Amino acid sequence: MPGEFEPHAGCWMAWPERPDNWRLAAAPAQAAFAAVATAIAAVEPVTMAVSDRQFEHARAMLPASVRVVEISTDDAWMRDIGPSFVVDGDRERRGVDWRFNAWGGLDGGLYCPWDRDERVAAKVLEIEGARGYRAPLVLEGGSIHVDGEGTVLTTEECLLNPNRNPQLNRPQIERYLADYCAARKCIWLGRGIVGDDTDGHIDELARFVAPRVVVAAKEDDPADENYAALADNWRRLELARDEQGRPLEIVPLPLPRALRYENARLPASYCNFYIANGVVIVPQFDDPADLLACQTLGRLFPGRQIRGLRAVELVWGLGTFHCITQQQPAVE
Amino acid sequence: MPGEFEPHAGCWMAWPERPDNWRLAAAPAQAAFAAVATAIAAVEPVTMAVSDRQFEHARAMLPASVRVVEISTDDAWMRDIGPSFVVDGDRERRGVDWRFNAWGGLDGGLYCPWDRDERVAAKVLEIEGARGYRAPLVLEGGSIHVDGEGTVLTTEECLLNPNRNPQLNRPQIERYLADYCAARKCIWLGRGIVGDDTDGHIDELARFVAPRVVVAAKEDDPADENYAALADNWRRLELARDEQGRPLEIVPLPLPRALRYENARLPASYCNFYIANGVVIVPQFDDPADLLACQTLGRLFPGRQIRGLRAVELVWGLGTFHCITQQQPAVE
Repeated sequence: MPGEFEPHAGCWMAWPERPDNWRLAAAPAQAAFAAVATAIAAVEPVTMAVSDRQFEHARAMLPASVRVVEISTDDAWMRDIGPSFVVDGDRERRGVDWRFNAWGGLDGGLYCPWDRDERVAAKVLEIEGARGYRAPLVLEGGSIHVDGEGTVLTTEECLLNPNRNPQLNRPQIERYLADYCAARKCIWLGRGIVGDDTDGHIDELARFVAPRVVVAAKEDDPADENYAALADNWRRLELARDEQGRPLEIVPLPLPRALRYENARLPASYCNFYIANGVVIVPQFDDPADLLACQTLGRLFPGRQIRGLRAVELVWGLGTFHCITQQQPAVE
Repeated sequence: MPGEFEPHAGCWMAWPERPDNWRLAAAPAQAAFAAVATAIAAVEPVTMAVSDRQFEHARAMLPASVRVVEISTDDAWMRDIGPSFVVDGDRERRGVDWRFNAWGGLDGGLYCPWDRDERVAAKVLEIEGARGYRAPLVLEGGSIHVDGEGTVLTTEECLLNPNRNPQLNRPQIERYLADYCAARKCIWLGRGIVGDDTDGHIDELARFVAPRVVVAAKEDDPADENYAALADNWRRLELARDEQGRPLEIVPLPLPRALRYENARLPASYCNFYIANGVVIVPQFDDPADLLACQTLGRLFPGRQIRGLRAVELVWGLGTFHCITQQQPAVE
């Protein structure tokens, strides 16, 4: 499974429309998704999965460079419902089609039914003409992150959660990650950030920006709700070794000040950036730390343009740029 | 617009499911469509457009060689709802996205609403990455047939029907066919066969099998309901000249004996064959003329295998192999 920082053949997204998660009939979210798609489409092909109902609307709101295809979904989180693209030994692109249970199924899942989401990965792979591997494991793409060299970052809160794969223990889950993502070394963090309704997805916490180099959310205020979990994760990263036995270079990313909606803290994290060809799309939260986050990523991605986009509308739906995208690696 | 007998890059179909047109929850029709798709997929790539509801069912019923994509439809007539593929001067594949009104709209159309069908051509073109030309003309693909050299065959009953384009006269329609299909010469037949609910589609009547060579349905029994219309069409073909001023070689195809459903005659015609790469798929109606139809087409297509497939289940839905397919020309 290539790292996200490796060259892409394209990017998949899904169009938001459900009114219980997106305010005002999803119109402001749709505008935000269109802005993200437009930014990514400038550097790599973007395909937007859209329901039949919204097809003409999405087509009209998106630039001609974005391909629009009909795929029914239950919401708009392509990172979690799409396939995890891998490249096999013959340099053929394949996709892992994980089982999906809406982040917890009937035990804390976010909605029911979720059968349309469950079919998305297979439909993406049909259109791309890529063979799928159907994995017997409930897993969302946002819960794992790889270095492209056999190391995977994930969290105990999500992958060991009894609402995902209660029949599997840690070594069995590691075995599946090795089998399907060729990730022979698994680095386990603990808990996610407050307000993350996915049970602690890694893509709000820590990301490989290159082999051996991880950027990680860091909270310096001991009074903050995220302090303990992020300090614990930081220590785990300091102790970790990658698949080749090397220690990690860990670079801190700040968090924005607590953003709330009806008193609930929102999962706003600069770690949810999307790495595109030549560009990194970084969420911005109208926060003083916005600039520092962009500067930090600018140093880590010297060959790429850093593009900040406002993500407040999206974080009200509880996810930002990484959650709504799914990269497709280039093959050769 | 290339002739259907020219090399194909693939074929599009749509999965039947509406229970008011297909008996027994469409299960027998689905088996028949699967057999057609399987036969065509042996010689050219086939994509099946399927609703979200039927996605897993269609995937399970079709061989892995058939690509299955989600596209909502109102029924299953890809010939009439799909784009008409054309090749532009740069050898790029494009598609004409005609307006569609369910074969007559609110004045004799076959169902309402038809908005899902209306969106199909655009969706096909998005997936194929082919630019579309949106034509300001109500037209179904089964109502025109071309020789690939600038001649189009059609019928007055359909294209001049006031339930299609009442604001346009014959020269204006010819002008649109010239503009969108590069068909500078239009050969007009009169009426279609009895039982054809499309208002006389040409693909039940007469087809180019090569430039200058037309195969046409012929009824020798003056007592048959189809006799007068087919005799008139035959005379028109005898008088016609193609775009280059050449007379046509006209080869007769028999009709099967009258097939009826609840006393209504069904539009069974051997002219509704589909020309695939190296194979011609010919409808068979459990009729003594089945063999003669195949032999006739065998002589006309010396380089192709003639493959008869039973089409009785499909003709109960009022169309057979040509009606349910849409070829995509190769552009090498």
